[in-house]
Amino acid sequence: MSVTTAQGFRAAGTTAGLKASGKPDLALVVNDGPQRSAAAVFTSNRVAAAPVHWSRQVLSDGRVDAVVLNSGGANACTGPEGFQNTHTTAEKVADVLGISATDVAVCSTGLIGEQLPMDKILPGVEAAAAALASDGGAAAAAAIMTTDTVAKEAAWTSAPDANGNSYSIGGMAKGAGMLAPGLATMLVVITTDAEVEAEGLDAALRDAVRPTFNRADSDGCMSTNDTVLLLASGASTAIPDMDEFTAGLTEVCATLARALIADAEGANHDIAITTVNADSERDAEIVSRAVARSNLFKCAIFGNDPNWGRVLSAVGTTDAVFDPNEVNVSINGVQICRKGGIGDSRDLVDLSGREVTVEIDLRTGDASATIWTNDLTQAYVEENSAYSS
Amino acid sequence: MSVTTAQGFRAAGTTAGLKASGKPDLALVVNDGPQRSAAAVFTSNRVAAAPVHWSRQVLSDGRVDAVVLNSGGANACTGPEGFQNTHTTAEKVADVLGISATDVAVCSTGLIGEQLPMDKILPGVEAAAAALASDGGAAAAAAIMTTDTVAKEAAWTSAPDANGNSYSIGGMAKGAGMLAPGLATMLVVITTDAEVEAEGLDAALRDAVRPTFNRADSDGCMSTNDTVLLLASGASTAIPDMDEFTAGLTEVCATLARALIADAEGANHDIAITTVNADSERDAEIVSRAVARSNLFKCAIFGNDPNWGRVLSAVGTTDAVFDPNEVNVSINGVQICRKGGIGDSRDLVDLSGREVTVEIDLRTGDASATIWTNDLTQAYVEENSAYSS
Repeated sequence: MSVTTAQGFRAAGTTAGLKASGKPDLALVVNDGPQRSAAAVFTSNRVAAAPVHWSRQVLSDGRVDAVVLNSGGANACTGPEGFQNTHTTAEKVADVLGISATDVAVCSTGLIGEQLPMDKILPGVEAAAAALASDGGAAAAAAIMTTDTVAKEAAWTSAPDANGNSYSIGGMAKGAGMLAPGLATMLVVITTDAEVEAEGLDAALRDAVRPTFNRADSDGCMSTNDTVLLLASGASTAIPDMDEFTAGLTEVCATLARALIADAEGANHDIAITTVNADSERDAEIVSRAVARSNLFKCAIFGNDPNWGRVLSAVGTTDAVFDPNEVNVSINGVQICRKGGIGDSRDLVDLSGREVTVEIDLRTGDASATIWTNDLTQAYVEENSAYSS
Repeated sequence: MSVTTAQGFRAAGTTAGLKASGKPDLALVVNDGPQRSAAAVFTSNRVAAAPVHWSRQVLSDGRVDAVVLNSGGANACTGPEGFQNTHTTAEKVADVLGISATDVAVCSTGLIGEQLPMDKILPGVEAAAAALASDGGAAAAAAIMTTDTVAKEAAWTSAPDANGNSYSIGGMAKGAGMLAPGLATMLVVITTDAEVEAEGLDAALRDAVRPTFNRADSDGCMSTNDTVLLLASGASTAIPDMDEFTAGLTEVCATLARALIADAEGANHDIAITTVNADSERDAEIVSRAVARSNLFKCAIFGNDPNWGRVLSAVGTTDAVFDPNEVNVSINGVQICRKGGIGDSRDLVDLSGREVTVEIDLRTGDASATIWTNDLTQAYVEENSAYSS
């Protein structure tokens, strides 16, 4: 149930002293092989952090031997000195593990616009390397937490193949969607002991990320540091059916994505917004996302108010194919908007629980997509205005 | 300093009983001519309210004799019955004034998804017609308020022309940007006694709205009812230079737009976000708007935290022409981000006042644009979650 569930991986988490709280802040994940293929997706933010620039280069040959991750500083908007610090960190990992720095991915999360304290990072790398263990997944997951209240881990195991071999996929994540105050970063490392080359990993990862992490949208704010890494060791010797592998990977990604939203800071409600019967998946996604980004809608849900007018007004800002006089909206199963007008009574909608489902029926096709978000609360504003260090 | 500043107009505000508070809720503005040309811009929301559909038809011939406006109900998402209610309201205005219903524009604001109480609207129209007066502008401005704390009015007067004639432009507005809880609507009526045909009014209005109302963005939520109407009576007999007229109209629009943002519910700071040295005005606008829509940035300003990393991460989500390593950012005159990296100390930035200026220097051209917004506060969440009736 962690980044060390799959065979062939060791991990560690340690306290380098980057966080004022004195909590663990540096993690290391090592692929002991025999295979070392890897794939990754990164933030599409054009203001990308130094570790994102570095890791993109590392991934270009589809090989990653180790990943070093730190909380307590994003190393974003830090110029050439910031990039040099990432490079130096990777070199340090390479030295202590006897590998090449060009096979070391780096991830950082924390405040933007401050240099990392390298006098703490480098000894932290040595300590983490000394602590590497095949059951170190939980320690690594704890060390990448920022304002997360719980560590996020997930795992999945395949059925045995024709040779009786099964394989596992396990992972860890940090971040509260984009709700983590100022840290605003999602870092994910997923490992597998299946035998899959880098190209196969890349295709599976893109398929798995699209309906999961890319549809978790807590406050519409895109980070400079988002990274999702997938590493394969081949240690199980199982050669997976790629459809099955992608399905398992998607399940792990979905579990981690839901855990991020469930831990979103200040949130009182987890909201799943599903658009159904859309002309295309793209239409379904943009409609769900438009609603997920409406502050007015999110405030209404915080107030337990099934204010469907705020759903419709958000839907109306999109260019999806629909007729405003044909749209139905249900909240928690009650169709309070029918054919773009007044439906069943608002009084029938119970919003007292944490889970909220919104279904928007466009009635123009058969595609659907869900965006996971949360409500907008006074606690969110408190957390994100009080933060400064 | 109102919608009756220009000659040739009468107005009234009355209490029809639409609001539970018992405050005025129905306004009437009448153009007594001799000219009755008009232009308008409406919400681009595809889920448009019944009065928007009606008024678009009315404006199609460039003539408006009267405008009836109600608060206490948006008449949006109300189906054929809602459209019939708008039609009936216009017919009633036409009857009591002896004009054609096809020359009566209608504006509504209030909760989406409820039918208007026509048994209150129709007597209200009679009462408003009886109260019409050439100094009725202030009463009309009060009657369109929803959660506004002050009525919004503005006026401008031209220099005399060659014949010694001058003309005026005056207007009223309601709405707190999009921050008004659930009401989420901006209604604006502007009048002038200049002699201008409908085509000229239309061109001037589009030029004036673009850098003013279209750049006031309090929370990114687009209404179903937004309407800006411009009526000309020609009563001054002054034939304006259209550049001068457009400049005066823009000044009136800017005053009203700033008043909307300044009255945004729950806001503690008014924020002007200006992008300079952009490759195009479009680039400057989308960059400023991306920052204006970042909840994280808006929370930081509420907390008096000059968190420029949240500015950069929002800029990075746009497709504007810029190099992340060349962007400068100043907050209240302090350049805290230089060439995409760390600039002057955050400690130099004083955010204790209400007015905040953010300048983003893209260094790729000479275009600029300002978006006016406000901070995201606990009071905003309170107002927008507590609302339900």
